[in-house]
Amino acid sequence: MYNLLDGLRIIEASSFVASPTAGLYCAQFGAEVIRVDQIGGGPDYHRWPVTDAKDSLYWENLNRAKKSVALDLASPKGREMLQELVRATGQFITNFPADGFLSHAKLAERRADLVTVRIMGWADGAPALDYTVNNAVGYPLITGQGPEPVNHVLPAWDLLTGAYAAFAMLAAIRKREQTGIGSEVRIPLSDVAIGTAANLGGLAEVLHNNADRPRLGNAVYGLFGRDFVTKDSVRTMIVVVTHRQWANLVAALGLRSAVEAVETQEGVSFAADDGLRFEHRRGLFPLFEKAIGALSYDQMEAKLDEAGVVHSAYRTMWEAAHNPRLVGDNPIFSACSANPSGFAYPAAGALGTIPQMERSDAKPAPRNGQHSEEILSTALGLSSGEIARLIDSGTVGIAK
Amino acid sequence: MYNLLDGLRIIEASSFVASPTAGLYCAQFGAEVIRVDQIGGGPDYHRWPVTDAKDSLYWENLNRAKKSVALDLASPKGREMLQELVRATGQFITNFPADGFLSHAKLAERRADLVTVRIMGWADGAPALDYTVNNAVGYPLITGQGPEPVNHVLPAWDLLTGAYAAFAMLAAIRKREQTGIGSEVRIPLSDVAIGTAANLGGLAEVLHNNADRPRLGNAVYGLFGRDFVTKDSVRTMIVVVTHRQWANLVAALGLRSAVEAVETQEGVSFAADDGLRFEHRRGLFPLFEKAIGALSYDQMEAKLDEAGVVHSAYRTMWEAAHNPRLVGDNPIFSACSANPSGFAYPAAGALGTIPQMERSDAKPAPRNGQHSEEILSTALGLSSGEIARLIDSGTVGIAK
Repeated sequence: MYNLLDGLRIIEASSFVASPTAGLYCAQFGAEVIRVDQIGGGPDYHRWPVTDAKDSLYWENLNRAKKSVALDLASPKGREMLQELVRATGQFITNFPADGFLSHAKLAERRADLVTVRIMGWADGAPALDYTVNNAVGYPLITGQGPEPVNHVLPAWDLLTGAYAAFAMLAAIRKREQTGIGSEVRIPLSDVAIGTAANLGGLAEVLHNNADRPRLGNAVYGLFGRDFVTKDSVRTMIVVVTHRQWANLVAALGLRSAVEAVETQEGVSFAADDGLRFEHRRGLFPLFEKAIGALSYDQMEAKLDEAGVVHSAYRTMWEAAHNPRLVGDNPIFSACSANPSGFAYPAAGALGTIPQMERSDAKPAPRNGQHSEEILSTALGLSSGEIARLIDSGTVGIAK
Repeated sequence: MYNLLDGLRIIEASSFVASPTAGLYCAQFGAEVIRVDQIGGGPDYHRWPVTDAKDSLYWENLNRAKKSVALDLASPKGREMLQELVRATGQFITNFPADGFLSHAKLAERRADLVTVRIMGWADGAPALDYTVNNAVGYPLITGQGPEPVNHVLPAWDLLTGAYAAFAMLAAIRKREQTGIGSEVRIPLSDVAIGTAANLGGLAEVLHNNADRPRLGNAVYGLFGRDFVTKDSVRTMIVVVTHRQWANLVAALGLRSAVEAVETQEGVSFAADDGLRFEHRRGLFPLFEKAIGALSYDQMEAKLDEAGVVHSAYRTMWEAAHNPRLVGDNPIFSACSANPSGFAYPAAGALGTIPQMERSDAKPAPRNGQHSEEILSTALGLSSGEIARLIDSGTVGIAK
């Protein structure tokens, strides 16, 4: 937690990964992010992974440091209250449909300068999910050894969309501060996916070559990079991104003359050309397999570190969770025992670190409706009697 | 292109994917992003994919709508000029080392309110890349069918870090506008990766279970989702995220009684529990394989669309590039024939769409040094004579 965004209040009505991530990043930088959820939780409130008691470890991490207001969003009164909260606040993150009761036009009727950031599936409102846009743009068919497509496990499009949404929120607020004009930024997962394929040169590549990129297994496209296995069976990723790293790697592994032989045979020089190292990988990889296969992991690590070559052994997530450099000694993590699940474990704070500012500990996620009374009082000015009647009538929920 | 960020000038000294992406997102929202590069280009200037003439399709897409100043960054004078450009501008995105001539402390010596966003490998300054942090946190070992690890092809950590960096830049600027205080936000790829594993509940999961998640192939964890193959051999991803979608899917495929038989046998009800549908996937998947395998793709598509179930056939990227909904008819793309490579193809603009504002066409990337004279004049106030001498001495480069 840092207080970069203190004073900024955001209403979030959202589910799944992308939209909650946008709110999470804002909350971890100090914004007051108020989730408004169905009483008892939205469609992702029990999503796996869960504890034995079925509390969602997913939900309680994607919603840290936020507040929770619970409303009956199936009722006209509950919907109206959410609309009023958005209008009273002026900033709104959501993945609700663009044309429903949370349409920007409807919300802006009495809050002309509203900023809405809306995460969508397709731009036309059709549904899409991370795992469907991923295969729609082609990545699973160039992942792995083939011939079957391989889905990613990391919901990369959701996460990228969430971070981009947080950025878009601040950009639109900046515009409003300078001009007084609000806006809605719509961010469809499908556009994030195909736009990113374009940004990385992937679309230009297949149009230029009039062909798809071949599958490369674990090799990296366009440069020297792949997984290799040491004598003691440690599989390690090694990637060369500078010419100096290449020279150092070849020297460190005693491969100068062997690499020169490939250069002579092929009539090329690898010294200053990433692409040639990639094009001739079939000649180069066996040399490196043999050299690395003759070293223990410790020996290889020492040589590569001295050579300044980037490498990393493959780890399981359990191993990563127990790695001091990644978690135990990493200042982005702090102990958090107040999780709704009751399970205590290291909690991540802001992904960025500001040396000039003090980082405060990660906060727990709220329980459903934990802040209903506080927010309805401070944001909508409702009296405690009015709030009590709304609770009694089932329109407002509070944490049990 | 939208003009949300007009009036904001940012210096970018960067290479590879994450840092250029941060600048790209700002430029596509209207900021004036000025890349400062080594004369002739930095280490990623020729990165694949490339054209026959070896122009980088990667570089020219990650650097659209930016300006380019070329300096000899190996010389003291060139380095000093970059430092002065940063100080004169006040906003800086970089992946240069934290302790070198572009350290925040050094730059802030005569620009106390400077905002620096610095992308790093590890937080301690050790090098890391997307493909090494990915395996350090565990994803390749739960991707695919196993037993080998499967690397992702999409540089998801780079992209997420880039978007988060753009967000952090605006958050830090907001703080400065309110307090006058600048700051440096450091964003290590390793922290983005392990922090995201935490945000998604993955770390809590392996700590709670004291075990790694098993590999699931193309099945989605914690809910009903997988790839299925139609009678005419079209492989399609199908994902169920709401209870209504589940009921509709079961009905649409005529599987009510078969699913009820599984429920009876296992003593469960799938109607309102994503997790149970996942836990009992071995009983459920064969029913759906058979039902979908009896339908043509067109038949299946019609049924699933009517049922509101999210699905998508696997496509190659070549197919995606030729898909009208994704590219040809998609307003985020515009024709761009002025690319440095000379190759003309659809160019992506901002990933978000603002219905209230007009989107202008995507702009090409600059040629190396294309804006050297303009920027040295407007930002540093150098005279044309001074600039000419710097060009003659090899400190400043201009586009050929």
